[in-house]
Amino acid sequence: MKLVIGNKNYSSWSLRPWLLMRQAGIAFEEVKVRLFVDSFADEIAKYSPAGKVPVLIDGDIAVWDTLSIAEYLAERFPEKALWPADRAARAHARSVCAEMHAGFTNLRNQMPMNVTAVLPGCGWNVSVQRDVDRIAQIWTDLRARHGDAGPFLFGAFTVADAYYAPVVSRFATYGVHLPEAAKVYADFILELPAVQEWIADAREERDFLADDEPYRLAPDRADAIIINH
Amino acid sequence: MKLVIGNKNYSSWSLRPWLLMRQAGIAFEEVKVRLFVDSFADEIAKYSPAGKVPVLIDGDIAVWDTLSIAEYLAERFPEKALWPADRAARAHARSVCAEMHAGFTNLRNQMPMNVTAVLPGCGWNVSVQRDVDRIAQIWTDLRARHGDAGPFLFGAFTVADAYYAPVVSRFATYGVHLPEAAKVYADFILELPAVQEWIADAREERDFLADDEPYRLAPDRADAIIINH
Ligand SMILES: N[C@@H](CCC(=O)N[C@@H](CS)C(=O)NCC(=O)O)C(=O)O
Ligand SMILES: N[C@@H](CCC(=O)N[C@@H](CS)C(=O)NCC(=O)O)C(=O)O
Repeated sequence: MKLVIGNKNYSSWSLRPWLLMRQAGIAFEEVKVRLFVDSFADEIAKYSPAGKVPVLIDGDIAVWDTLSIAEYLAERFPEKALWPADRAARAHARSVCAEMHAGFTNLRNQMPMNVTAVLPGCGWNVSVQRDVDRIAQIWTDLRARHGDAGPFLFGAFTVADAYYAPVVSRFATYGVHLPEAAKVYADFILELPAVQEWIADAREERDFLADDEPYRLAPDRADAIIINH
Repeated sequence: MKLVIGNKNYSSWSLRPWLLMRQAGIAFEEVKVRLFVDSFADEIAKYSPAGKVPVLIDGDIAVWDTLSIAEYLAERFPEKALWPADRAARAHARSVCAEMHAGFTNLRNQMPMNVTAVLPGCGWNVSVQRDVDRIAQIWTDLRARHGDAGPFLFGAFTVADAYYAPVVSRFATYGVHLPEAAKVYADFILELPAVQEWIADAREERDFLADDEPYRLAPDRADAIIINH
């Protein structure tokens, strides 16, 4: 299996299936396509008609769009229990993932994922806070319900944790204040070895995507590659 | 089972699971919550912590967010074959649904669903056309591949048809020009008895949602209820 992803520093959608597979121990080859360089459109067209990362390639099947990739993996590797086994919990997990897939646009616009940046206080406004409150509520409720079964949202690791990992990263980058239970969960996710591996890889990248950097100027560094699109 | 929906004239997300259940012959009780009236937040909070329609209530399980509802129904009624049986086709169906769930924001913003309105030419711009082109490509490719098996996107009716039905309605309202194969599919969906039933119900509504009506003035009609929010 091949997973086609974008820049690790910026591509929140790429992080989700990558973490899902890494954390669940599903082997895959990683193919990186740099976002928004001139060659992006041609490169990604080789893999997906939708023109976006991530894409999962399994033999001659191409699966694109994160939630579809997650469902595909859950069916393909039932022994990994990527969704909760209990029907009500599974419905709940899919609801919070679908909510993330379509929503939290204030947070996503104002606080673009930027894994290696430290920008406390940037981007905050009252609409962002509404998204933060809803996310903190989701995490807190789920941890209260499933805390005895393990440290992830539904006890054991599921798609839901992978889905909210980029939000954990945003909260760290932008120094978002969280209620205690939500903070404990966020800290736990951030320290996962797979998440730390992703962050370390992001540090090796040299692209500066101007559109995803509303709060910084391009670095004055010989090895940085500045991309305006 | 209860399905909680919003105004039939405006709520594109509500149409999807409603049509899925109606077309597949899954019995349900319909609960309508009027969008954006003062009581909306309190009403919807009875059913869903996410505060949005649609919500499916199955006994003591509440399932919210359209894609999660679709997956729940597909699991609950396997005999209805709501996803294609073939693995590659199923992945493809989920990919185009996930694409719709998160995307086509230009089309969605510029051409809000308005089932009973006739507004040819309104809302069009080049970004909208890019979304239209991608959707027409999806429909055309799927019809070319599965045309022999029946008139729906994957031959038989699946979640994918329910997912694109609100787009069919938008194309009709805003008079969007489509390539022939896409037009044949759109016309077919619009004529489905279940879709016609939804449209007839929408005609009975009297709410005028100002935010979803960028191209019309509130009607000068005693029985219209104008909602600005
Ligand atoms: N709904 C898609 C969103 C994917 C997406 O927006 N990917 C971005 C990078 S994070 C991308 O490929 N952008 C390139 C473009 O839109 O041209 C998913 O869940 O996979
Ligand atoms: N991602 C959600 C979107 C649902 C949604 O946006 N519903 C709208 C009506 S079409 C709504 O309830 N809006 C009320 C609000 O946001 O307060 C889904 O797929 O169910």
